[in-house]
Amino acid sequence: MQAKRLNIRTTQAMQFINIDRQLNEIIRESGVQDGLCVIFVPHTTAAVTVNENADPDVVRDLTKEINKIVPFNDSYSHAEGNSAAHIKSSMIGPSITLVIENGRLVYGTWQSLYFCEFDGPRSRSCIVKVCPD
Amino acid sequence: MQAKRLNIRTTQAMQFINIDRQLNEIIRESGVQDGLCVIFVPHTTAAVTVNENADPDVVRDLTKEINKIVPFNDSYSHAEGNSAAHIKSSMIGPSITLVIENGRLVYGTWQSLYFCEFDGPRSRSCIVKVCPD
Amino acid sequence: MQAKRLNIRTTQAMQFINIDRQLNEIIRESGVQDGLCVIFVPHTTAAVTVNENADPDVVRDLTKEINKIVPFNDSYSHAEGNSAAHIKSSMIGPSITLVIENGRLVYGTWQSLYFCEFDGPRSRSCIVKVCPD
Repeated sequence: MQAKRLNIRTTQAMQFINIDRQLNEIIRESGVQDGLCVIFVPHTTAAVTVNENADPDVVRDLTKEINKIVPFNDSYSHAEGNSAAHIKSSMIGPSITLVIENGRLVYGTWQSLYFCEFDGPRSRSCIVKVCPD
Repeated sequence: MQAKRLNIRTTQAMQFINIDRQLNEIIRESGVQDGLCVIFVPHTTAAVTVNENADPDVVRDLTKEINKIVPFNDSYSHAEGNSAAHIKSSMIGPSITLVIENGRLVYGTWQSLYFCEFDGPRSRSCIVKVCPD
Repeated sequence: MQAKRLNIRTTQAMQFINIDRQLNEIIRESGVQDGLCVIFVPHTTAAVTVNENADPDVVRDLTKEINKIVPFNDSYSHAEGNSAAHIKSSMIGPSITLVIENGRLVYGTWQSLYFCEFDGPRSRSCIVKVCPD
């Protein structure tokens, strides 16, 4: 099944954007009841992850702590000045595989998928491939 | 092929549990000889990884070092007090895809799959989807 | 479709090796136009990631910063002395799923796949499974 492109406009340097609504729409339109959903980020300074959608403090803490683990400035060599974003991208990862059941993503109670912007604001995209059983 | 649920009872705050036996049982029962096996954790304070199963010191060092990288307490905002566990979940990741060949998981000599508990002890589950070629 | 093995000879203790050429050859030989490509590393002290292929300083910064986050020596217990490599393997991850479209990997402009050696130099391998739609 043809992969779909999501367009995402980020507005901050670092931002976690819940894209469940768009994913569920793609799955619904595909008509697929059971299968896999692979989300791939075609950028080297962004990523995808699954985490809690209930308390916005979780994403706030995630942002703050990742910036502590990978500081924005740390005598990097890359002249573009966004090495920290490249490192975060590999640490969180640009690809994730989810399970589709009964036409819906299989999630725990509090889970959502987040597009992770590490070098925004930018116009981004996301590849979504639905693979029926 | 219908995804299966594994129930996992963790007994410590942080714990790496080898679930190969259960995975191999699911694959054997499926009768699938070649394909993929996607493992997805429906929790925001747990993860899955592959690492060494021979020397238990490897998992001990992994646990200790992850706790150093993401300290349990670090002026987090999330009121539930388990922000470190959420961050570790995104860092190690809640989804992994393995390869099935001749009815078995393709592993290196010392590899096993570990369910990673970051906020236990709890009753957990794991989604296992076998996708035949 | 039968998974393929890539042999990789690393020459340094820590090294990121671009394996796009080999991946594209496997995909071309498979004749698959659309589907998934799962890359799995059967080693507990190596990983795979996607990152920038244009400026070698990105990989240099990535290497240096990962070594700062997970120091080579940190009172580890594992007697083999390569605990840092095991930890990096779980942090970056031994499995990644890419999308194939029109017989090619779907990448952003600057993306390539890197085999990540964390305990070299060694003779390594990589499992590549092409899954047609």
